Amino acid sequence: MPARDLKRNNVIGHVVDRLCRSESYRVISFRDDHRMPMPSMEKIADAVESLRSLLFPGYFGLSDVNHSSIPFYTGSILSRVFDMLSEQIKRGMCFSCQEQKTLTCESECEGKARVISSKFIESLPGIRTLLASDVWAAYEGDPAAKSLGETIFCYPSIRALTSYRIAHELYRLSVPLIPRMITEMAHSETGIDIHPGAEIKDRFFMDHGTGIVIGETCIIGRNVRLYQGVTLGAKSFPLDEKGNPVKGRPRHPIVEDNVIIYSGATILGRVTIGRSSVIGGNVWLTHSVRPYSHIVQASYEDEAFEDGAGI
Amino acid sequence: MPARDLKRNNVIGHVVDRLCRSESYRVISFRDDHRMPMPSMEKIADAVESLRSLLFPGYFGLSDVNHSSIPFYTGSILSRVFDMLSEQIKRGMCFSCQEQKTLTCESECEGKARVISSKFIESLPGIRTLLASDVWAAYEGDPAAKSLGETIFCYPSIRALTSYRIAHELYRLSVPLIPRMITEMAHSETGIDIHPGAEIKDRFFMDHGTGIVIGETCIIGRNVRLYQGVTLGAKSFPLDEKGNPVKGRPRHPIVEDNVIIYSGATILGRVTIGRSSVIGGNVWLTHSVRPYSHIVQASYEDEAFEDGAGI
Amino acid sequence: MPARDLKRNNVIGHVVDRLCRSESYRVISFRDDHRMPMPSMEKIADAVESLRSLLFPGYFGLSDVNHSSIPFYTGSILSRVFDMLSEQIKRGMCFSCQEQKTLTCESECEGKARVISSKFIESLPGIRTLLASDVWAAYEGDPAAKSLGETIFCYPSIRALTSYRIAHELYRLSVPLIPRMITEMAHSETGIDIHPGAEIKDRFFMDHGTGIVIGETCIIGRNVRLYQGVTLGAKSFPLDEKGNPVKGRPRHPIVEDNVIIYSGATILGRVTIGRSSVIGGNVWLTHSVRPYSHIVQASYEDEAFEDGAGI
Amino acid sequence: MPARDLKRNNVIGHVVDRLCRSESYRVISFRDDHRMPMPSMEKIADAVESLRSLLFPGYFGLSDVNHSSIPFYTGSILSRVFDMLSEQIKRGMCFSCQEQKTLTCESECEGKARVISSKFIESLPGIRTLLASDVWAAYEGDPAAKSLGETIFCYPSIRALTSYRIAHELYRLSVPLIPRMITEMAHSETGIDIHPGAEIKDRFFMDHGTGIVIGETCIIGRNVRLYQGVTLGAKSFPLDEKGNPVKGRPRHPIVEDNVIIYSGATILGRVTIGRSSVIGGNVWLTHSVRPYSHIVQASYEDEAFEDGAGI
Amino acid sequence: MPARDLKRNNVIGHVVDRLCRSESYRVISFRDDHRMPMPSMEKIADAVESLRSLLFPGYFGLSDVNHSSIPFYTGSILSRVFDMLSEQIKRGMCFSCQEQKTLTCESECEGKARVISSKFIESLPGIRTLLASDVWAAYEGDPAAKSLGETIFCYPSIRALTSYRIAHELYRLSVPLIPRMITEMAHSETGIDIHPGAEIKDRFFMDHGTGIVIGETCIIGRNVRLYQGVTLGAKSFPLDEKGNPVKGRPRHPIVEDNVIIYSGATILGRVTIGRSSVIGGNVWLTHSVRPYSHIVQASYEDEAFEDGAGI
Amino acid sequence: MPARDLKRNNVIGHVVDRLCRSESYRVISFRDDHRMPMPSMEKIADAVESLRSLLFPGYFGLSDVNHSSIPFYTGSILSRVFDMLSEQIKRGMCFSCQEQKTLTCESECEGKARVISSKFIESLPGIRTLLASDVWAAYEGDPAAKSLGETIFCYPSIRALTSYRIAHELYRLSVPLIPRMITEMAHSETGIDIHPGAEIKDRFFMDHGTGIVIGETCIIGRNVRLYQGVTLGAKSFPLDEKGNPVKGRPRHPIVEDNVIIYSGATILGRVTIGRSSVIGGNVWLTHSVRPYSHIVQASYEDEAFEDGAGI
Repeated sequence: MPARDLKRNNVIGHVVDRLCRSESYRVISFRDDHRMPMPSMEKIADAVESLRSLLFPGYFGLSDVNHSSIPFYTGSILSRVFDMLSEQIKRGMCFSCQEQKTLTCESECEGKARVISSKFIESLPGIRTLLASDVWAAYEGDPAAKSLGETIFCYPSIRALTSYRIAHELYRLSVPLIPRMITEMAHSETGIDIHPGAEIKDRFFMDHGTGIVIGETCIIGRNVRLYQGVTLGAKSFPLDEKGNPVKGRPRHPIVEDNVIIYSGATILGRVTIGRSSVIGGNVWLTHSVRPYSHIVQASYEDEAFEDGAGI
Repeated sequence: MPARDLKRNNVIGHVVDRLCRSESYRVISFRDDHRMPMPSMEKIADAVESLRSLLFPGYFGLSDVNHSSIPFYTGSILSRVFDMLSEQIKRGMCFSCQEQKTLTCESECEGKARVISSKFIESLPGIRTLLASDVWAAYEGDPAAKSLGETIFCYPSIRALTSYRIAHELYRLSVPLIPRMITEMAHSETGIDIHPGAEIKDRFFMDHGTGIVIGETCIIGRNVRLYQGVTLGAKSFPLDEKGNPVKGRPRHPIVEDNVIIYSGATILGRVTIGRSSVIGGNVWLTHSVRPYSHIVQASYEDEAFEDGAGI
Repeated sequence: MPARDLKRNNVIGHVVDRLCRSESYRVISFRDDHRMPMPSMEKIADAVESLRSLLFPGYFGLSDVNHSSIPFYTGSILSRVFDMLSEQIKRGMCFSCQEQKTLTCESECEGKARVISSKFIESLPGIRTLLASDVWAAYEGDPAAKSLGETIFCYPSIRALTSYRIAHELYRLSVPLIPRMITEMAHSETGIDIHPGAEIKDRFFMDHGTGIVIGETCIIGRNVRLYQGVTLGAKSFPLDEKGNPVKGRPRHPIVEDNVIIYSGATILGRVTIGRSSVIGGNVWLTHSVRPYSHIVQASYEDEAFEDGAGI
Repeated sequence: MPARDLKRNNVIGHVVDRLCRSESYRVISFRDDHRMPMPSMEKIADAVESLRSLLFPGYFGLSDVNHSSIPFYTGSILSRVFDMLSEQIKRGMCFSCQEQKTLTCESECEGKARVISSKFIESLPGIRTLLASDVWAAYEGDPAAKSLGETIFCYPSIRALTSYRIAHELYRLSVPLIPRMITEMAHSETGIDIHPGAEIKDRFFMDHGTGIVIGETCIIGRNVRLYQGVTLGAKSFPLDEKGNPVKGRPRHPIVEDNVIIYSGATILGRVTIGRSSVIGGNVWLTHSVRPYSHIVQASYEDEAFEDGAGI
Repeated sequence: MPARDLKRNNVIGHVVDRLCRSESYRVISFRDDHRMPMPSMEKIADAVESLRSLLFPGYFGLSDVNHSSIPFYTGSILSRVFDMLSEQIKRGMCFSCQEQKTLTCESECEGKARVISSKFIESLPGIRTLLASDVWAAYEGDPAAKSLGETIFCYPSIRALTSYRIAHELYRLSVPLIPRMITEMAHSETGIDIHPGAEIKDRFFMDHGTGIVIGETCIIGRNVRLYQGVTLGAKSFPLDEKGNPVKGRPRHPIVEDNVIIYSGATILGRVTIGRSSVIGGNVWLTHSVRPYSHIVQASYEDEAFEDGAGI
Repeated sequence: MPARDLKRNNVIGHVVDRLCRSESYRVISFRDDHRMPMPSMEKIADAVESLRSLLFPGYFGLSDVNHSSIPFYTGSILSRVFDMLSEQIKRGMCFSCQEQKTLTCESECEGKARVISSKFIESLPGIRTLLASDVWAAYEGDPAAKSLGETIFCYPSIRALTSYRIAHELYRLSVPLIPRMITEMAHSETGIDIHPGAEIKDRFFMDHGTGIVIGETCIIGRNVRLYQGVTLGAKSFPLDEKGNPVKGRPRHPIVEDNVIIYSGATILGRVTIGRSSVIGGNVWLTHSVRPYSHIVQASYEDEAFEDGAGI
């Protein structure tokens, strides 16, 4: 063996040794005490794409479905999604059990996962109704939109909301990990980061979308429009006696019906943006505002905003 | 059949029924009245990557082309791109016809699509000239750039501009849907959202780029530089008598030659940023500024900006 | 041949001619004077994913490794990564030589690349230690985080930092091009743009992350937390006598230990943010601040920020 | 450019010239006068595999179908196969038209292809009945077969017959080219070459199968068993005045019910093998034999063969 | 919906109905009463290829293993093969249980499958020793062989024997279905059909190989050479009272050491070919022959065969 | 770790040890003393498919080439094939050097490989001329052939001959290993095994083809037709003083012009089959026959064979 290969192998042997030594796992433990694999990104992405093709038939997935063949198509996709989701939800639950050191959960988690899959499937017609309203909101809210179909097919807002509305339903059914995986995939694709725990009513539109952040305990009313770079975040969070953040407390804004928030605005804390308010771009806001308020960055005079104004 | 499978199937049968019922399509119609499939994301992405390899030979696609083999390579890629684009443009046109309820358009659209493909192909040498100027602008505008080649190969600015310049040419040729699909793919990859309708002259550079939005009717001069998070948007849009936005009106900024706009600035409406102006970071601007202006956020004193200053 | 095909071919022949003519390469040269292909995005992405599976065993890659099989697994992945990296580093070096018109570098670059690969491999245990501290920082810094494992598996912060810490080590070993390719891949996935030259200590956390920019000469201390849209950039850069930017000068901020910077803040130039300072959202800052400073946007009164406050 | 690359390119340019010159196409014409592409091997293979999964549900394709989900599954696969086959049959027909210099056939062929696809789909239940009988024949005819399921899943005989029975139905519907493509794919996989024109009744079994040839005008009765290497071929064929073989005449054997033919036997010409005959291995036979004959190679005495004897 | 689509859908609906009706499953039952999927061809093919790379390191699989890295490589491949095989063996066992209507076997089969996998893994060094002898036999038995490496890399004999020797070991461990799947894959690739139950000693060579059939109860000694088209089959098999063949009885030839059998010879029944015999091409043989016999087809005088003579 | 995993790992550790021990490599050496990887099956298959698309444009590969685009297409495929072949030929040469313990051959082999690639490319027009004659022979020799195009697209004879004629040209250029790999791939697909060393003139046709074997030193004249299962083999081969076969001696038949050989015939040794002879099925022949002979199996009277008779 040439000397240089010898050297390579010595280095590798040495590093294997150091990486596999138990001290190396003091801080973050190595997942070896449980046989259930992690949920699969690929399978979850596949399930989400399959659901997209059911929610918007003819736009995604098979392009040649028609009124007669669609029941077959819908039924076979639903069967497949049901089984994929049951498996991935089970893995998500077992992962969560493991984090809590509950190790003999497999068959119990499998049963629960199937029940949840059933309930999720039943929520699909309602998800379609919500998304249809979001499609109209995108078409009406963007002068550049040429047709309803274009918003379904191309708009990051519809893409991110489809993922969010699926993930939110799973979150409501107490599925661990999977909802977050779904919204993070949409985050990576669109730059829009909606926590699956947020509650968002119908007719929601996010123009451009990159950089939007919507926190876990947000509540957003009907007919709300956001522009790129808007943050609906938490302002502060209490720590427990060990210095860890207290989890699960309402800490993000409530945005009432018909509100418009322009690009780059940052709204923090459990504040309420009253109905039909307009928040200007780049505003930093940490207190509630009354209905019909118009808030703009202090240092610039600004022409009047009318309802329907946009970017 | 085990009881639990029975239950699963009942649920699926029930949901199929609800999803396929015609009421479910009241709001967004189901694409079943037309046999032309939607344009294919995969094929369009393939065409764009092929064009990238023609525009920057040796950097993308086949790495071993040389002065003698390049005509063969260029010719065979062009033939392939011509046919792929003709098909996808036809689909985009038929989609647009369908939205307008014109159903017997297929052969007419096919002919038009081939004419457009020809014209598009003829514009490629001009697109290369523009992109070459953008490469120089990136190299000169970023102290971190080590070579021209690095900016071609790694910079989101060049990647997004290649897609935009291709999409803009198709937009100019009145192709529906496809240009938007191309810029949305680049948006997803780079976080840079340039509407294909915008007009951008040569030597354009966007450093970092994430969150940049450039609206449909923007006009951008030569040698302009933007940083991440800059919005060139619309401020308001008039509604027609039905409450829908009036489409197609000039509503985004005009940015003249040699302007620099720093990160997070938001410029809205059909305003003009005069030549050689510098707009500071996080500024919110809704009126025109004269040539050679230096605009900064009000609340901070700030050292002088010279030409050539950057982030 | 139908007339329309004839027309198509004439156009293609004509465009081939114009694209292959030497004038077309006046501005950006065509890569044909060197036989070494460009580094491969696919191979580098593969190497980074393989390293991710070694750094967090059980989370990524093979899910069924255990205490006995992990040395085999680690050794075989390391061997593969070593060879892939050696090849790609060699290509990066040759690319760099070519830009400097050094054409007979291949065997010299190959030898150097193997030495660098060895040194890089030896740095992996240290990279794991740093990333373990980042995982804790994410868990403690986000009330929405349910477990350490969730932050490893889902958080863009950990994903981007894994890529950055790998790329930074290669940057320190003077590898050209490859480090930038690695961080740009992470930039595309997460919207987080960290230059591989930046120095970042342990326990670093970026919540949400989209739009964060960290420049080449930044120095960031321990236990720092950033929110989405934060820029740590350069304010101005001197030009040399030819008008090109002077490369490689310290021009980005120094951020000391325990600093928190909220969303959308822009900090420019070689300034120092003193230890334990808190910088509010959307702030534009171009001068140094003392330790324990609390800086907020001028135009809004604001409730007090405590340590531990977040979004 | 290095001298060696120059040389390479000269050679290539020279060969391109010679290969593209029209003389080069004197003998076999170049397919350029018709725009319809050749049928796709991949698509046809996909259709055949999909049909296999419908004919033997649970063995091939989705493994988790059950009594409730199978109608959805069957319906969606049938829709897909219908469309794939219609397209491929159309291509096959246009290919055939082109060979006969009929160039404006596309829309007429499309209509015919859909009618044929419908008729083919209607024949599937009958094909399943035949194949079920073949499965029993395999199980009963091979002492090594452990179960019916094993013969479905593993036996080349069932694999080749599934392809043949599909191809034969298309042949009966006068589809050009496609049936032959299907049986040639099975020939490549199993070494069994059955012309799609042959007629084969139920309960047919070919043990091992490699090298079996069954010609275009063969007629094979019920309950026939062949071993590997059996040829049922033509002995001579008349030539027309131009010296080309006269096509389409009966020229292959008729094999009546319950016949067994051992390995390597060659039977040529339009002869009849009477019912319940047994033909020994390696026999060369060019005349008819009466029912209940036992034919063996002349030069060896041989123990009696009983019904049910096998290899 | 166009009339033609209506027609299509009526046909499909009608055929779905007929294919899913229970009468359609009278003859071959539909696999729906068991949840374990069929073994996966793809996984088993993957396991066999992985084993090939372990048995002949450097020839197949990773080409850059060396004396230091090979333990890592071997260990990680073995771990992966162990898990793949355990899963597939379990499926094969459950399939077999189902055929026997034993439905609650899953966890028992899982345990057994792991024990068998262990034993199989332990047999690998012995399999390598046998295959090494087969490689020498091929090199020495074919004047066209240029090197040992060429026979490993290109010869169907070595390819088929590798699969057979793996399958035979699994057969000895009483694994159902999987051994047959492995030898049928090799049969499809090489045209060589060796039943996994056959016993074959070392230094075995099959030149060309197409059409060779070696039956379930064959016993083949050391240093035997076969040419293409040789059948070692059964002559007759007794039927039980129901008319089904009695399974599992010795019914194929015993071939002693140093025998050569030329192309197309057919040897049937539990006969013994005595040591060092030579059987000529196309011979049909159904009785035992003494050691050192030379059997040729009767009708041709023939020159003497010496040991070492070949085709 | 569960006990069963412990057991698994012990077994694996133990087997790794035995497989990696040096004794295990006594018989067949482990390829570790040379860094050049084995030739790649995938790349060679890719090159052969690319050549097939050049030789029969419009049938294989891109279906939309036309008279104007074909030079581009041909040129770019040729460039790609040239580079692929150069690399694979180099690997084949280095493999051969290694077998002869010549270890420092890499750059010399690289140069030679490029020269050979050039020469091979120049032989392509001649290969096309030969194959065109083979296509005519297939069409005229098979009454079942409906058109010239069908024989190009579907017939195993044309498929195997394309591979053989490519491989033979490489064999003539003294390329080791690669020609055999190419003909073995065709052997696996078609069951036709032609050694690349055989010499075969124009207008050659093999009907059905399965099981045909044509040995290394065969010489076959013009207008010869073979049926399935024909062997043209060696009868005996002399051994050298060590007992190894003497390589490279003429030992296979010479078949003169216009000969027809029916299925299953076996012709062995350096004998000559005189022009226009007809050899009947299953004949075993080891001596020369005069021109115009008609040889049939002895034991059956047989009707007269006319020229043009077939199966």
